[in-house]
Amino acid sequence: MSTSNTDRHAAGLVTLKSITGSSGEAVVDSLKDIAPDFADWIVAFAYGDVMARPGLDKSTRQIATIAALTALGTASAQLKVHINGALNVGCTPLQVTEAILQMAVYAGFPAAINGLVAAREVFLERGVSPLSPQ
Amino acid sequence: MSTSNTDRHAAGLVTLKSITGSSGEAVVDSLKDIAPDFADWIVAFAYGDVMARPGLDKSTRQIATIAALTALGTASAQLKVHINGALNVGCTPLQVTEAILQMAVYAGFPAAINGLVAAREVFLERGVSPLSPQ
Amino acid sequence: MSTSNTDRHAAGLVTLKSITGSSGEAVVDSLKDIAPDFADWIVAFAYGDVMARPGLDKSTRQIATIAALTALGTASAQLKVHINGALNVGCTPLQVTEAILQMAVYAGFPAAINGLVAAREVFLERGVSPLSPQ
Amino acid sequence: MSTSNTDRHAAGLVTLKSITGSSGEAVVDSLKDIAPDFADWIVAFAYGDVMARPGLDKSTRQIATIAALTALGTASAQLKVHINGALNVGCTPLQVTEAILQMAVYAGFPAAINGLVAAREVFLERGVSPLSPQ
Amino acid sequence: MSTSNTDRHAAGLVTLKSITGSSGEAVVDSLKDIAPDFADWIVAFAYGDVMARPGLDKSTRQIATIAALTALGTASAQLKVHINGALNVGCTPLQVTEAILQMAVYAGFPAAINGLVAAREVFLERGVSPLSPQ
Amino acid sequence: MSTSNTDRHAAGLVTLKSITGSSGEAVVDSLKDIAPDFADWIVAFAYGDVMARPGLDKSTRQIATIAALTALGTASAQLKVHINGALNVGCTPLQVTEAILQMAVYAGFPAAINGLVAAREVFLERGVSPLSPQ
Repeated sequence: MSTSNTDRHAAGLVTLKSITGSSGEAVVDSLKDIAPDFADWIVAFAYGDVMARPGLDKSTRQIATIAALTALGTASAQLKVHINGALNVGCTPLQVTEAILQMAVYAGFPAAINGLVAAREVFLERGVSPLSPQ
Repeated sequence: MSTSNTDRHAAGLVTLKSITGSSGEAVVDSLKDIAPDFADWIVAFAYGDVMARPGLDKSTRQIATIAALTALGTASAQLKVHINGALNVGCTPLQVTEAILQMAVYAGFPAAINGLVAAREVFLERGVSPLSPQ
Repeated sequence: MSTSNTDRHAAGLVTLKSITGSSGEAVVDSLKDIAPDFADWIVAFAYGDVMARPGLDKSTRQIATIAALTALGTASAQLKVHINGALNVGCTPLQVTEAILQMAVYAGFPAAINGLVAAREVFLERGVSPLSPQ
Repeated sequence: MSTSNTDRHAAGLVTLKSITGSSGEAVVDSLKDIAPDFADWIVAFAYGDVMARPGLDKSTRQIATIAALTALGTASAQLKVHINGALNVGCTPLQVTEAILQMAVYAGFPAAINGLVAAREVFLERGVSPLSPQ
Repeated sequence: MSTSNTDRHAAGLVTLKSITGSSGEAVVDSLKDIAPDFADWIVAFAYGDVMARPGLDKSTRQIATIAALTALGTASAQLKVHINGALNVGCTPLQVTEAILQMAVYAGFPAAINGLVAAREVFLERGVSPLSPQ
Repeated sequence: MSTSNTDRHAAGLVTLKSITGSSGEAVVDSLKDIAPDFADWIVAFAYGDVMARPGLDKSTRQIATIAALTALGTASAQLKVHINGALNVGCTPLQVTEAILQMAVYAGFPAAINGLVAAREVFLERGVSPLSPQ
């Protein structure tokens, strides 16, 4: 509770940018017309309170989100945001793909296939090789 | 396809033991009466083909599984197996907890609370402090 | 059991029209070629037996459905039907948005974002202001 | 709409008994104190309108329900009811187990393991061998 | 962003108490040993930022949460908290039951049955009649 | 474990072709650029180890998969593959539709509607009558 709301928002913006580049801010901005407070919660809570925390490194946090969204199978747009996020914070395409493949065991083959389809779209958009270990 | 089934099974057993200690083998053994082939799939496919792969380190794989099972919310027994697995391969209690907390953002607070309840049970059984960074 | 099937069907049609206008009947009609009995179940069971019940007012019933479909995240077309339904029975755009926002807590931010995207589409189609309290 | 409600209810009771023996009626009766109309919907809609339909044989209907409830992973009590139901209408323990195993592919290993745990409980209660092909 | 964190926390505590009585605080307190920041998020974010908002009345918010948790089927403990919460803020047992029944249409009969089981437990603990309209 | 990997792969290819015709192989081939081992798992594990098993006939296996994917609601592309698969191994359009309708009871009306939408697309592509009993 010692962090002020200004600090939460500032920390959230820094984390949002480092993970999503300009695309995260675009999502936040696009929500301001319909739900301005929700747009602020993404910055201050999701990125400021949660994703900015030091206890787990940024790459592992992105892998955790990719695994969860692949398993849930209900948020393909957000999955693509976080596949981009993983690459932005230093994960390789291969690490992203491995996390998605692993979900075949925990959430079934259709979930993994749909995760791979999302990953391929992101890799194509960025012009990276899907099997690149770096 | 170059790996023989004997190799798959052997690799799976090594990985299963390194992650779950003796408890994973106990689960596999307990399934042999009702579904012996399924017991073998856990070893040869889930651990031999998938979890033994080199492209993602063991700690990150356990965090990915913890994130997915916390988000799905339908497999508390398996979540506990993989919280134990995370600690067995070198994750700290704090890292496990962080991955679960993060699911509040991606799957909601009830999912995260139920994940924390599972984690607390594992930490108590092992006698480790939940906030320990090491 | 005292209600006849004719009564169930008639009550269902009235409720279906009051909630969905002409769009609900269009969905029902579109299903008659592939599953005529299912089309009847929507009218007689879903709307006649369930949604026509007096124990909860129509607005609250639509909010309950919006909350559930936002949380599940697997039925965006039906979510839009019930966002329209909520507005048809007297909910304000703001009340619809609040119910969706609340799902960030119970089902996660991606579920809420996808719910907001559906709501914005409906609000645009109807030409209503998303932040209108009336 | 030509079927009267009395007919729906009567058809539902016959189907309910043939699938669940006395246990289904016990579930229905137990719900009468809290939701008497819902208890009637189980009989008249779920069993009368849907499960009594001729287009798919009873065994296949039970296998379909077992597959769905195993995949969803949120209704273990109902899964046990329908594993019993499958055996009551002539499925073998092996067929039940096969349907559950198959869900490892479509919904992941934890879902299949939890389905097997439910099946083992039912097989034990009935004193049948899990691997019996008849 | 004009609300300070002290204000968020204070507003959250008031809302938490008005909805959950002493049980919500007990849940929050029980989480402090394993995840103190998460305990604070429940108060400041879930109840302070979200549930305290004026745009939807407290009764409808509880009905929305009950509908969502019944549909998801993965959080029975939290469902019971919010069934209690609904009764605490003025919903009748009948309104709670109606919202749960409605989920038979949107999430299936097993989800509704499990919701009714949770409701019956709460009604019994509180000594209220399940069919009471007041 | 007595089956060699060559045998698993060969059995899987035969089963894959008998169920999906050429479309399954196309899916497998399309995944080879991004995840070649996963493409092999589909053949050797999903179709070779699991779907080729003798304990349940091919038609019932397809119905089980259709029921599960309809209930989950997160894999419409794969649902269409298996609706085609059901027709390929001898199920009638009516049997497919019945399995989907039944999911209204176990997973809700929106899940069943979305399943019917997928079925209608497949029936149209194949030029078969949706109500044909043969």
